[in-house]
Amino acid sequence: MENQGQLAQYIPELAKIDPDKLGIAFLSNENETFGVGDWQTRFSIQSISKVLSLSLAYNLLGENIWERVGVEPSGNAFNSLVQLETDNGIPRNPFINGGAMVICDMLVSHLKKPKSDFLEYVREISSCKEVNFSVATAKSEELVGFRNKALCNFIKSYGNIKNDPDEVLDFYFHMCSIEMSCLELTKTFRFLAFSNFKTFNGDKVLSLSQAKRLNALMQTCGFYDESGEYSFKVGLPGKSGVGGGIIALHPEKYGIAVWSPKLNQKGNSYKGMKFLELFTTETQLSIF
Amino acid sequence: MENQGQLAQYIPELAKIDPDKLGIAFLSNENETFGVGDWQTRFSIQSISKVLSLSLAYNLLGENIWERVGVEPSGNAFNSLVQLETDNGIPRNPFINGGAMVICDMLVSHLKKPKSDFLEYVREISSCKEVNFSVATAKSEELVGFRNKALCNFIKSYGNIKNDPDEVLDFYFHMCSIEMSCLELTKTFRFLAFSNFKTFNGDKVLSLSQAKRLNALMQTCGFYDESGEYSFKVGLPGKSGVGGGIIALHPEKYGIAVWSPKLNQKGNSYKGMKFLELFTTETQLSIF
Amino acid sequence: MENQGQLAQYIPELAKIDPDKLGIAFLSNENETFGVGDWQTRFSIQSISKVLSLSLAYNLLGENIWERVGVEPSGNAFNSLVQLETDNGIPRNPFINGGAMVICDMLVSHLKKPKSDFLEYVREISSCKEVNFSVATAKSEELVGFRNKALCNFIKSYGNIKNDPDEVLDFYFHMCSIEMSCLELTKTFRFLAFSNFKTFNGDKVLSLSQAKRLNALMQTCGFYDESGEYSFKVGLPGKSGVGGGIIALHPEKYGIAVWSPKLNQKGNSYKGMKFLELFTTETQLSIF
Amino acid sequence: MENQGQLAQYIPELAKIDPDKLGIAFLSNENETFGVGDWQTRFSIQSISKVLSLSLAYNLLGENIWERVGVEPSGNAFNSLVQLETDNGIPRNPFINGGAMVICDMLVSHLKKPKSDFLEYVREISSCKEVNFSVATAKSEELVGFRNKALCNFIKSYGNIKNDPDEVLDFYFHMCSIEMSCLELTKTFRFLAFSNFKTFNGDKVLSLSQAKRLNALMQTCGFYDESGEYSFKVGLPGKSGVGGGIIALHPEKYGIAVWSPKLNQKGNSYKGMKFLELFTTETQLSIF
Repeated sequence: MENQGQLAQYIPELAKIDPDKLGIAFLSNENETFGVGDWQTRFSIQSISKVLSLSLAYNLLGENIWERVGVEPSGNAFNSLVQLETDNGIPRNPFINGGAMVICDMLVSHLKKPKSDFLEYVREISSCKEVNFSVATAKSEELVGFRNKALCNFIKSYGNIKNDPDEVLDFYFHMCSIEMSCLELTKTFRFLAFSNFKTFNGDKVLSLSQAKRLNALMQTCGFYDESGEYSFKVGLPGKSGVGGGIIALHPEKYGIAVWSPKLNQKGNSYKGMKFLELFTTETQLSIF
Repeated sequence: MENQGQLAQYIPELAKIDPDKLGIAFLSNENETFGVGDWQTRFSIQSISKVLSLSLAYNLLGENIWERVGVEPSGNAFNSLVQLETDNGIPRNPFINGGAMVICDMLVSHLKKPKSDFLEYVREISSCKEVNFSVATAKSEELVGFRNKALCNFIKSYGNIKNDPDEVLDFYFHMCSIEMSCLELTKTFRFLAFSNFKTFNGDKVLSLSQAKRLNALMQTCGFYDESGEYSFKVGLPGKSGVGGGIIALHPEKYGIAVWSPKLNQKGNSYKGMKFLELFTTETQLSIF
Repeated sequence: MENQGQLAQYIPELAKIDPDKLGIAFLSNENETFGVGDWQTRFSIQSISKVLSLSLAYNLLGENIWERVGVEPSGNAFNSLVQLETDNGIPRNPFINGGAMVICDMLVSHLKKPKSDFLEYVREISSCKEVNFSVATAKSEELVGFRNKALCNFIKSYGNIKNDPDEVLDFYFHMCSIEMSCLELTKTFRFLAFSNFKTFNGDKVLSLSQAKRLNALMQTCGFYDESGEYSFKVGLPGKSGVGGGIIALHPEKYGIAVWSPKLNQKGNSYKGMKFLELFTTETQLSIF
Repeated sequence: MENQGQLAQYIPELAKIDPDKLGIAFLSNENETFGVGDWQTRFSIQSISKVLSLSLAYNLLGENIWERVGVEPSGNAFNSLVQLETDNGIPRNPFINGGAMVICDMLVSHLKKPKSDFLEYVREISSCKEVNFSVATAKSEELVGFRNKALCNFIKSYGNIKNDPDEVLDFYFHMCSIEMSCLELTKTFRFLAFSNFKTFNGDKVLSLSQAKRLNALMQTCGFYDESGEYSFKVGLPGKSGVGGGIIALHPEKYGIAVWSPKLNQKGNSYKGMKFLELFTTETQLSIF
């Protein structure tokens, strides 16, 4: 596999990562795990975290959340403001930045201690008690986050952010700064991969129908404006982050996480995409 | 189920259809068929036909076709010219009108007698020898097709239509005018639903990987700018047409076709969408 | 003055012109004329002609014409389809191609023999009986005019073209193919420059208020998306064409025409713009 | 004249104004003043102030300012973010909000005490020593100014705002909050109306060429996306503000200010526009 792509440059903390890191973890429906390379090294999961905040909001608020955010692919770059202007402040889906901010705004309204309550939730579903924010990454992103600040204030101007934009952004940047290893990622996403998954307390995170819907959303919107290409070549629900991580799921069969920090032009892990394409083509284990 | 929506108004021939028609056909991987209502009445399959022309071009030209048309959801209404301007005449995907025209242009270049060769192909894969164009519908659409004429000339101005736009449009309008019943639709789409499907000659239409890719494309782009909503609620690869038909597939398991002519605001069959949502929710038989 | 810019490439007939042609003609309110260089050589006036068709429609139909075309600068490239989509088929102003086509459509509806009647009108106001279309240029443009064909059919799809698009385009391409010299241009535009101008029959072409309005329109919209720059630097109502001609007026004082075929990136004569900027800066004779 | 339109609603402080106020002031090149109605009552001049900040930046920095802001009409609503995305953070002109913010950023960089230095400048050119900011209006606008906050951070993300966005916005909101009467407005704009104008110190504010350029800019861009309509009907360089004020100039002849707080749909004073149209039509004193 060629060694193309480049590190996310716009978040200073991410630009410092060793570009040659590569990890792959596999988790079967029998709870068997396999891994190669840096599969137990933590990295910044970034946008992958948007699935986690969304799932918590979905758990807490049910179908009401779809009144404030759509479920359609955006067809534009992930930080575009254009569509918001046409759509009166309703972001196209919860995985573009604006949509994730609206979800964060819901959690800020609903949780008592938003940041620590969210962290608690992630630790609960992942069974990984040491998972944490990287405050350095959150701060690093906040310092250069003028585009995100613009986005949040823009949505606020349409009334679709209820709290103070600065507070929402603080939650948003922390949420995106969560660090996990590939192994931890596969464990975290069991609640979407396996319908018999229950937390330590014996609770289901989402109903079967809700889980299927989140999987469908990842399929159509999980890879920014490369979601079609990803569906086309990989054929599994998944989500990527600019930290170079990707999680992909074959419902009821397996979960797979890849980490390689160099990104292609669309902001997705160059090697991660290539690997998953090869994997599903060779194994013929896609959902299609 | 409420009786909402309205007939496609912009094609005079379609506006004449009895709005209360309703048919459903089901085809299992054991070749069992079931049906209710008007499941054996032919109707204009319209955009569903775009999957057929695409599959023929894919069969003939292989992966080269993706140089002239993308695989990303458009995020805009199905006849929008805006994105073409940004993307220099490369349509976002082969299911929006512009993309389907580029595919038609390939077939016009490649086939000796484009219209009859295409019809032959459809009859071959459907095993339905009487399937035919509706010349009346094709003419009806041509007479009012100023938007499509604009679209085709616009793409031509970027050089991504090689033939005379009028010739391409003539092929396009005929292709869209094909009439099938729900039963015939399920039979026609066996080549995408079942990997062991072979034509009468013993040929496979597409390789396994190609078929998976078309399924993925239908999943992300098959319902205009309601594709996300459809994936979210139905969770099956599928394609709709403004004639009120929908075909949906559960790969290796079954195919299902619905016809009800009244359309919702996005141009998809109102009852068809509702039925498929209920069906996959009740049976829990989605791909996710 | 540097010799920058390049010939209009998209119209084959215009790409053949000697790029070093340069002519300037001046006409005072005392009917004195001066000229230098190729000021008596005819060239294709192209979009300058849009002022003439507009003035005839304004003369014939009065303020009604503004129901079908706006008076705002477009802020986009001169052949953009995007704004038409937002504005439901009402072109922003009569000097962008779409707007000029709507005006042509009015004339096709209103004139008995559209092309020859229009030519008669131009000969009347210019007092130049030999002014004519270049059929070769009209045909040349028609052969490659896919973008204009798209535009006309697109507006037709909104109902703002009443006649057959092909007929409207034929008129449009002929109208744009009119050939005049710089001298003839200055004479032709007396009806806008001097309020006491009357035709041979003693008629005024437009009322004083109408003439002022056309001058204002040229000021704000006459140079495609360089209209602001032109107003800013030249400060006179004017109109340019891709044949390299520019007419500019100082109401009640003088008219000036420049011809130099090499165009800048915005499609306006490179040297023509430079000359007019120098001229109004040195003489301090702008309207501001 | 009908009593249409409505008060600017989005700035709470402006929504409190008596909607029936109406003032008109006229200043001749002989320094004669006339006035009717509330011509000596101060009101919030809002965007009219953008001409003043622009003139100060032009005075201080010369033609360099045009590297960071354009001179073309925007063709879009005055607070649109869309074009900025296409144009990489270079606002179309200095009279749309984004462009005015870039000019404010230049002044924040260049002036020692930006707010008081700017106020000093306005007092100097207006000869009105009591002219002042309305801190209440500035604060009122700041509290609801999410769209402007979005805009400023968005431009900052392209690097075309050099200072802290909050500091630039504070200057911007104060600048827009300046209060003047119609009479004071006409005096303030003498520096653009009359080429022989000098400040108390005997200085010219702008060179003749610079003043003509600002007049041209007001002509093409001074009335948001109604600039073409205004030029068309009024035919004088001018600038409006959402406080309901309009200043219009006939270079070397006169200045005229109108104030009526109810706005038309484009955000310009309903009666102010009507009055100026009547005035220039009746007097035939436009620049065209």
